[in-house]
Amino acid sequence: MHDLGSWDEEFGALTADVCKRLVEIAAPTEAVCIPLQGSGTFAVEAAIRTLVPPEQAILVLANGAYGERMARIASQAGRRVVVLDGPTHLPPDPAAVASLLAQDPGLGYVGIVHCETTTGLLNPLAAILDVVHNLGRRALVDAMSTFGVLDVHAAHPAIDAIIAASGKGLEGLPGMGFVLMSPSAIDASRGQCDSHSLDLVDQYDYLRAHGRWRFTPPTHIVAALHEALLQYEEEGGRLARLARYESNSAALVVGMNAAGFRLYLPEELRTPIIHTFCAPDHENWDFQTFYAAARRRGFVLYPGKLTHEETFRVGCIGAVTADDMRRAVTAMSEAVVEMGISMEPILVEAGADN
Amino acid sequence: MHDLGSWDEEFGALTADVCKRLVEIAAPTEAVCIPLQGSGTFAVEAAIRTLVPPEQAILVLANGAYGERMARIASQAGRRVVVLDGPTHLPPDPAAVASLLAQDPGLGYVGIVHCETTTGLLNPLAAILDVVHNLGRRALVDAMSTFGVLDVHAAHPAIDAIIAASGKGLEGLPGMGFVLMSPSAIDASRGQCDSHSLDLVDQYDYLRAHGRWRFTPPTHIVAALHEALLQYEEEGGRLARLARYESNSAALVVGMNAAGFRLYLPEELRTPIIHTFCAPDHENWDFQTFYAAARRRGFVLYPGKLTHEETFRVGCIGAVTADDMRRAVTAMSEAVVEMGISMEPILVEAGADN
Repeated sequence: MHDLGSWDEEFGALTADVCKRLVEIAAPTEAVCIPLQGSGTFAVEAAIRTLVPPEQAILVLANGAYGERMARIASQAGRRVVVLDGPTHLPPDPAAVASLLAQDPGLGYVGIVHCETTTGLLNPLAAILDVVHNLGRRALVDAMSTFGVLDVHAAHPAIDAIIAASGKGLEGLPGMGFVLMSPSAIDASRGQCDSHSLDLVDQYDYLRAHGRWRFTPPTHIVAALHEALLQYEEEGGRLARLARYESNSAALVVGMNAAGFRLYLPEELRTPIIHTFCAPDHENWDFQTFYAAARRRGFVLYPGKLTHEETFRVGCIGAVTADDMRRAVTAMSEAVVEMGISMEPILVEAGADN
Repeated sequence: MHDLGSWDEEFGALTADVCKRLVEIAAPTEAVCIPLQGSGTFAVEAAIRTLVPPEQAILVLANGAYGERMARIASQAGRRVVVLDGPTHLPPDPAAVASLLAQDPGLGYVGIVHCETTTGLLNPLAAILDVVHNLGRRALVDAMSTFGVLDVHAAHPAIDAIIAASGKGLEGLPGMGFVLMSPSAIDASRGQCDSHSLDLVDQYDYLRAHGRWRFTPPTHIVAALHEALLQYEEEGGRLARLARYESNSAALVVGMNAAGFRLYLPEELRTPIIHTFCAPDHENWDFQTFYAAARRRGFVLYPGKLTHEETFRVGCIGAVTADDMRRAVTAMSEAVVEMGISMEPILVEAGADN
């Protein structure tokens, strides 16, 4: 209930403090934070158009919808794109990345999705970054769902850009993306972006020179993110947030296994961000009916994003606790009972639950 | 305090209702409304990249910062751009537009800013659209500050796109742009956009097929815009909103003239959206001091955007009334007194106040 002018120094200071806090979360890093209006996808396109010159090519590692989207963004932007296309249940092999880069010297950039939320699979970011660095290439990291939760390896010398957004693990409102860019990447790419609204260096230079955004900022989203970052600090920072999400994730996995739902990914590839469950193998199964039954009980699920297998997804992030996750499990258990589907508990041995 | 899932049908219905209401405001028109994440500038770039094929050229009418920005957007997007560059105190001459289009058959598109808020100048939209139509070209209209307030001539056959945003005269929160596009323009431009995140046809097709946005939508901004549109309807629609802004504008102009402030534009070129005032010709004048003094009294001003003359701007739109404007005048009057600047009232004869 307090008016802020988007050109006023008070809002400029709010933006600067948000950016400073986002860099601190990713520390240690020399990078600066460049905020951008829109969703995280806009920030992914902005990073590609700002960093990858039109005549250069990018290798995109795609084992899910978000890797595929990154490839489409680069391709529609006219860059030459090579896709390392993998199945959705496997991480990309660093040796395969090395081989592709060695074969094709034009591949100056590598695009990686840290957590592929199509399935919840954690890609081997550090190992891929080592390959990228050893072969003298630069990396663009989509850390949309992991920023503020997992280690995004911000200090790794291969990284030109880490891309994330105001929602997800930061628990702000959706409506703003941001990119952490190293000062050297900023200097090297000044003036080369082929989009005005997505030009991260122009956005950065203008913010620094004038203390305000180039175009109308999402004022309320910035203010909400500032508050979310204060709450993040109060909770204890990244490790405390990760601990809560791990507790949420454990409550979900244990409960769902007990209710008879099988996880799509083996334990070692999962993240405490989102889990993919296989649809019960039962003639009464119908996702829309299941969705509606869970929704009536107060829980909105994500449909699966896989084409070869029917699945659904449950997120573990946001302002929720393990108790909320247990209530969600109860809602889903009741939903299948209502559908006349009976399932046997899945027994999980320690370290080998799939 | 009510959670909405961005993939849930309840949010899809909210988006659909927002779009329906936005089209109704611009009626009569066959156009559909395509919402886009980000600010209005992102929607301007999206309209250009979606509608103007890379090999085609666009004539941009620029008599202020927003026309210049549109030209820069098109140019940075690789389109050939011809700029009809005019002084900031004059509207573009429709005959000059006709002449440029006749000389250059490659200019398939014309970009126009309805109200150039650099000064508050109202461009002669209908006359320009007639020229565009008579010469068989297509128009892109930046109606950012006029949508919902002035007649945007949505039914004019020259129009391919009308571009606006969630804030400004609609009084929603900033964070979302939208474009009204005719079904024929949508069909003609499907698949040609050279940006994935700014592809309006893809955004439209996906929304229509799935009832949800392609990428994370700014959920709270959409919900706030919905509420703002309900309030818009309650107020009585466009003419009622225009009447309030005219009352705000009159209170501001009369009060500022009485306080000795001269308007930059003659009355016939002004809009009841924003006014530009000339800085007092006094050795004590300093905009930052004036700004700070007005701000202490609760009013945030806009700096001028002109390079050849020192000015400042005062907006008349938003959830404010004529009483608020009178209080703003008092604040600015007190500010100049505090600065030791005494001014004589400007006497205004009817119809010739500058």
